Amino acid sequence: MTQYKPQTRAYAALKATDPLAPYSFERRMPGASDVAIEILFCGVCHSDLHTARNEWHNTIYPSVPGHEIVGKVVAVGSAVKKFKEGDTVGVGCMVDSCQTCASCAEGLEQYCEKGFTGTYNGPLYGGGENTYGGYSSSIVVDEKFVLSVSHKDQLAAVAPLLCAGITTYSPLHQWKVGKGHKVGIVGLGGLGHMGVKIAAAMGAHVVLFTTSPGKKEDALRLGAHEVVISKNEAEMAAHASSFDFILNTVAAPHNLDAFIALLKRDGTMTLVGAPDSPHPSPNVFGLIMGRRRLAGSLIGGIAETQEMLDFCAKHGIVSDIEMIRMDEINGAYERMLKSDVKYRFVIDMASLA
Amino acid sequence: MTQYKPQTRAYAALKATDPLAPYSFERRMPGASDVAIEILFCGVCHSDLHTARNEWHNTIYPSVPGHEIVGKVVAVGSAVKKFKEGDTVGVGCMVDSCQTCASCAEGLEQYCEKGFTGTYNGPLYGGGENTYGGYSSSIVVDEKFVLSVSHKDQLAAVAPLLCAGITTYSPLHQWKVGKGHKVGIVGLGGLGHMGVKIAAAMGAHVVLFTTSPGKKEDALRLGAHEVVISKNEAEMAAHASSFDFILNTVAAPHNLDAFIALLKRDGTMTLVGAPDSPHPSPNVFGLIMGRRRLAGSLIGGIAETQEMLDFCAKHGIVSDIEMIRMDEINGAYERMLKSDVKYRFVIDMASLA
Repeated sequence: MTQYKPQTRAYAALKATDPLAPYSFERRMPGASDVAIEILFCGVCHSDLHTARNEWHNTIYPSVPGHEIVGKVVAVGSAVKKFKEGDTVGVGCMVDSCQTCASCAEGLEQYCEKGFTGTYNGPLYGGGENTYGGYSSSIVVDEKFVLSVSHKDQLAAVAPLLCAGITTYSPLHQWKVGKGHKVGIVGLGGLGHMGVKIAAAMGAHVVLFTTSPGKKEDALRLGAHEVVISKNEAEMAAHASSFDFILNTVAAPHNLDAFIALLKRDGTMTLVGAPDSPHPSPNVFGLIMGRRRLAGSLIGGIAETQEMLDFCAKHGIVSDIEMIRMDEINGAYERMLKSDVKYRFVIDMASLA
Repeated sequence: MTQYKPQTRAYAALKATDPLAPYSFERRMPGASDVAIEILFCGVCHSDLHTARNEWHNTIYPSVPGHEIVGKVVAVGSAVKKFKEGDTVGVGCMVDSCQTCASCAEGLEQYCEKGFTGTYNGPLYGGGENTYGGYSSSIVVDEKFVLSVSHKDQLAAVAPLLCAGITTYSPLHQWKVGKGHKVGIVGLGGLGHMGVKIAAAMGAHVVLFTTSPGKKEDALRLGAHEVVISKNEAEMAAHASSFDFILNTVAAPHNLDAFIALLKRDGTMTLVGAPDSPHPSPNVFGLIMGRRRLAGSLIGGIAETQEMLDFCAKHGIVSDIEMIRMDEINGAYERMLKSDVKYRFVIDMASLA
């Protein structure tokens, strides 16, 4: 463990109303099953902002956000088998789970019945210590929660796959999206642009729904086969009862019925965004008349995240990113609030030095 | 066709504000593929009342309700193969569909893309003539929409299977309810009491949810293994994340989140009742955190209805009924509005003579 030093440089929010600022702390020394990682890049997820500003009313301060982490292994514990020094790896939204419940046993740690441990802000449920995320120079993680990254040539653009990628891949994979399927992606942001790329790579006919006519050209460039302006009722009506699956990435409250009506019989719309205030209540007739389904999905399990990374490497899929320096994070948050990013900010951790 | 006379006695609503009253009309003479049926019993569904009173704003008058029909074949057309004079048969909610769309091709006529023809009040969608239902002495139906009834000893109590039975059987069957499953049935009315009987016969552990403590004993008698008073938060919490499937038969607006929280990961709640005003909007977190699903279901296809009738005959399942005379229908409607029926009114058509 020659290269590993527990002293870690980071950016943290000290309270909800403060901007993020330089902060330093000590990581644990790697245990037998731990991997110590020098962080090279970290994506910026909207959850980071929610947490830094305590918008979910559960933030433990100091808060070091960041759960789209890629970097290089600098030390491994004595029992680590999957990784060695020098490996390129990733860490996503989780760093631990109970490993014994039915969900963990099925490799679905994101639904751990005791609550998984988030990469930052500690356990989602129950007790336990705070955890510090990827806006930092290094991280120490149990090897079970470390992913192998094989496409190293665009490493910064791989980082957002660890949250935005798996959040969209998991429901597309769960509902067996593939050739011959007509698939809708609602919203073209960090999640939506990954959904378009992944669904297209899975072989589906991809229709992107957006309220912004200005996003049409970009959606087609990203791999969408059609773009529908969801405010245009005639355009929407032309697609009635025709979708096998719709992935809805929009967290702002909106009319779900307009999309439910576009599902075929037995079609499913999966929501991956949770609005601060409720969506208008969906009309039950829309579900009954076509035996349609409304579902939810939360990130993805570790095995599935590895599968997603390998799928993306095989298909040459990375995120469209805008690289920032660590000291630009507060400005990046302001731009993210205006959806002014195509499509994910990624922090170059060399800028933290 | 010696026995068949097109002249038909019935009860009809002549307008929304009128009580049902005696009415007579002529059925068509049976065509080559038609079966003429002397109606012996007809169940009383809440849809009958909605239609008679134009509560769905689509009633064509005169309106002869009734779509839980059992009776005896009195004549068959020259091309009819499945039925002969004297057979005991049933007719449910549909008497025709396009027979060519994808749904019809899969035997799911209830989702016919051109709209099935209802047993009464004509086509649900599009043009076409009015149809007259089972509050009548006879009916003529294409053999494709006629069901074979094998348990004749309790024929009156078989009638409600044609709507209440199939509406609950179909989603339980679709979602593969069986041994080892914990299944919830929400509401103990005409639909709910059939759901309890059928889910128990499928081998599931059945929990009945009701707001009425007075229904507990009856639910256990009908086959429920447990009864939960859904207004009791502690009772509900004890069942958190434990259900494989929940069939929600309640049409009145209510808090869906309380039931969604009881589903296991990947569990589904299917709604078969459509409220007049919307349910409170479900919390998206409840769907996301357990990858849970909210679905709808509409009656069932003809092949599935036959399967349900055979399943019920095999397991000795019929509806709990209260027999009425045809001239008691208006009083029965008033009692139905107060949920004062255990659990289905059935009209003895001999009383129409």
